Amino acid sequence: MNSIAIITKKKNKEELTKEEIAFMINGYVKGDIPDYQMSAFLMAIVCNDMTERETIDLTDIMIQSGERIDLSSIDGKVIDKHSTGGIGDKTTIVLAPLVASCGVKVAKMSGRGLGVTGGTIDKLESIAGFEVETTKDQFVEQVNKIGVSIISQTGNVAPADKKIYALRDVTGTTESIPLIASSIMSKKIASGADAIILDVKVGAGALMKNMEDARALAKRMIAIGAHYNKCVKCVLTNMEEPLGYAVGNGIEIMECIDTLKGNGPEDLKQLVLTLGSLMVSIAKDCSKEEAYQELEENLNNGKGYEKFEELIEAQHGDIHQIEVDPCVSIKSKKAGFITHIDAYQIGDIVKRLGAGRMHKDDIIDHGVGMTLAVKVGDFVLENEELVKVHFDSQDINIQEILDCFTIEQDVKEKSPLILEIIE
Amino acid sequence: MNSIAIITKKKNKEELTKEEIAFMINGYVKGDIPDYQMSAFLMAIVCNDMTERETIDLTDIMIQSGERIDLSSIDGKVIDKHSTGGIGDKTTIVLAPLVASCGVKVAKMSGRGLGVTGGTIDKLESIAGFEVETTKDQFVEQVNKIGVSIISQTGNVAPADKKIYALRDVTGTTESIPLIASSIMSKKIASGADAIILDVKVGAGALMKNMEDARALAKRMIAIGAHYNKCVKCVLTNMEEPLGYAVGNGIEIMECIDTLKGNGPEDLKQLVLTLGSLMVSIAKDCSKEEAYQELEENLNNGKGYEKFEELIEAQHGDIHQIEVDPCVSIKSKKAGFITHIDAYQIGDIVKRLGAGRMHKDDIIDHGVGMTLAVKVGDFVLENEELVKVHFDSQDINIQEILDCFTIEQDVKEKSPLILEIIE
Repeated sequence: MNSIAIITKKKNKEELTKEEIAFMINGYVKGDIPDYQMSAFLMAIVCNDMTERETIDLTDIMIQSGERIDLSSIDGKVIDKHSTGGIGDKTTIVLAPLVASCGVKVAKMSGRGLGVTGGTIDKLESIAGFEVETTKDQFVEQVNKIGVSIISQTGNVAPADKKIYALRDVTGTTESIPLIASSIMSKKIASGADAIILDVKVGAGALMKNMEDARALAKRMIAIGAHYNKCVKCVLTNMEEPLGYAVGNGIEIMECIDTLKGNGPEDLKQLVLTLGSLMVSIAKDCSKEEAYQELEENLNNGKGYEKFEELIEAQHGDIHQIEVDPCVSIKSKKAGFITHIDAYQIGDIVKRLGAGRMHKDDIIDHGVGMTLAVKVGDFVLENEELVKVHFDSQDINIQEILDCFTIEQDVKEKSPLILEIIE
Repeated sequence: MNSIAIITKKKNKEELTKEEIAFMINGYVKGDIPDYQMSAFLMAIVCNDMTERETIDLTDIMIQSGERIDLSSIDGKVIDKHSTGGIGDKTTIVLAPLVASCGVKVAKMSGRGLGVTGGTIDKLESIAGFEVETTKDQFVEQVNKIGVSIISQTGNVAPADKKIYALRDVTGTTESIPLIASSIMSKKIASGADAIILDVKVGAGALMKNMEDARALAKRMIAIGAHYNKCVKCVLTNMEEPLGYAVGNGIEIMECIDTLKGNGPEDLKQLVLTLGSLMVSIAKDCSKEEAYQELEENLNNGKGYEKFEELIEAQHGDIHQIEVDPCVSIKSKKAGFITHIDAYQIGDIVKRLGAGRMHKDDIIDHGVGMTLAVKVGDFVLENEELVKVHFDSQDINIQEILDCFTIEQDVKEKSPLILEIIE
């Protein structure tokens, strides 16, 4: 076997054998195959796709490149959740303790920020003292004890994916159904959960630009799950505006707390209850309606928030010390209806304020961010607040921030947040 | 401008601006853009093509990356010729002196062997003492004096193409109409001829696998030529079997001498006369028929061979010392008609015998090669010679050599050598 022949085969739109895919992936991890061959191979996959069989094989090879976490010592079904990446997406931080408050085990390994989207682990680290690195034994012990733990994804899980992801990030090869599906699913399968609920974001600022691609991705991930006898369900959600009001690290934690106390933004609450009802119904083998009701009750009666406090305490965080910078208010220059909020652009500005990384080893600023005062569909007066910008010493460009908001004279019908559930 | 955005644009099948293409190519030559980004970019071009406008811009940027040879001090029109690469293709060595014998100026810069195809320069170096490196002044002076010179392509011509070609060779990105067209045409335009005749090989072992692709490549190269006011004509030729009988370096020179003495193989003679008639008719502004007749006469009356002797002498070669190894004869195991000779496989075997390079700096063996005893359409008896293998100390695999010949009971109609002329 040789790498040029395999690249050429995929370039010619032919189906690769598992041995050929393994030759490329394992060779790349070992350093036998150089970056420039792997990036040509990845671009050929991006342009010519992979069959379902090839995608499953690619996933399997990436799983086998590292450790497979064994969660069998956790009592009961373990349900995982993953999002393809949204702006202001703090869902996991509300969802994990809320689902655990219903008696379902949530053993969650999360990632850090990537591109313009933030990461659950970065957000949780705005809580003083919160520990995200732990041994596997401590992780399992905590899940068995209080029902929930959120830790940083270990580097031993699917290391092939980690190395390939870094290359995709700098070679324009991120947008591909087989590459996204295998990247997500290799980590999820290796992380050991019994079932996986996937939140697939759709929209101009998301990896999936339209419903057709989002459905194709969902079906591919469900097929991979089926291969491993894992129940996988996908929720396709709209990402035409940021989720909730807060985009940043510390300010998103504040919004999570509000939500767990029953006072959160409607869209975040709706997404948490939809994803949560799938998780709970699988774990408890009950109907989605029953699960939804129980979750809603625990959001209103404080049980979800209590579980969140337990989670933070178990991982040594101090809930009273959350980093948030002072803010300035940006006001609208005209009156009208908000018809669009550019989530991607807001993510990018917040990243540049210091909430995200430009390079792998950058230290992030947990205090910066943007808190929207409006959502799509709202009416705003001239001089009324559009957004609060939390920042420290950086320069901000007010026009750039104003440009994130489209204000028109006629109200537009708002598209729903939950677009489709694929099971 | 940034490289990832430009790669992504081509990945999304969008047309690039000249500035974007220049950013990538010049950035790569300077070392600002790494190999792994360039190879992803090249694969996106391979998969999604380029428009004619993009291809012309790419060619122009590659020309501007280096020196443009000025041949205006040569009296009369200078006609260049190029082949996309065939097995046993020694056409230039016969064609250049023959055309010069008709009074047409041939200032030819040629390449070395690449992949399984040999190179004119390597072949000429089997003549003891023959010099292929010379100054530009000497080159022009020789063309003005005797009408012909064949030298090694200088590294200063289209250095961007040189660097990109080396990367394409190891990343499965060789087969692409815009990349092939811009690679050939950037070198040809920068080399300064007034008109260019292109021999586009078609067949399983050639870069162009079918007529449709070959026509598209021809038209793209003609369009690039038109942009520079250069007359470009393309001859599409069949490469279903090696050209002539000899495949190697020294033995191909022997076959060239036979041909120039009027005793060469029919297919080589036909190709030389076809390409030559286009060159001479452009240079002398006469009909192709008149040109063909003059060339044929000079092949028969020895004037072509005399010009060849002048050429070799002018570049200090000793025509009586040509390197050729002893040979063994491989005989057929059955009787029948030769219906196919695998040119690509023969090229590969000869390369491995030492006629070609496995690595850039390998020293090649001018004496090795294979001399066919048969051509497609011939009838062969059991135990009759199929081929002579010239080699030194290497091992040869007789079965592998036998497998290059398909022998069947029924004769098949032979497809013509000259498939189409596109002007």
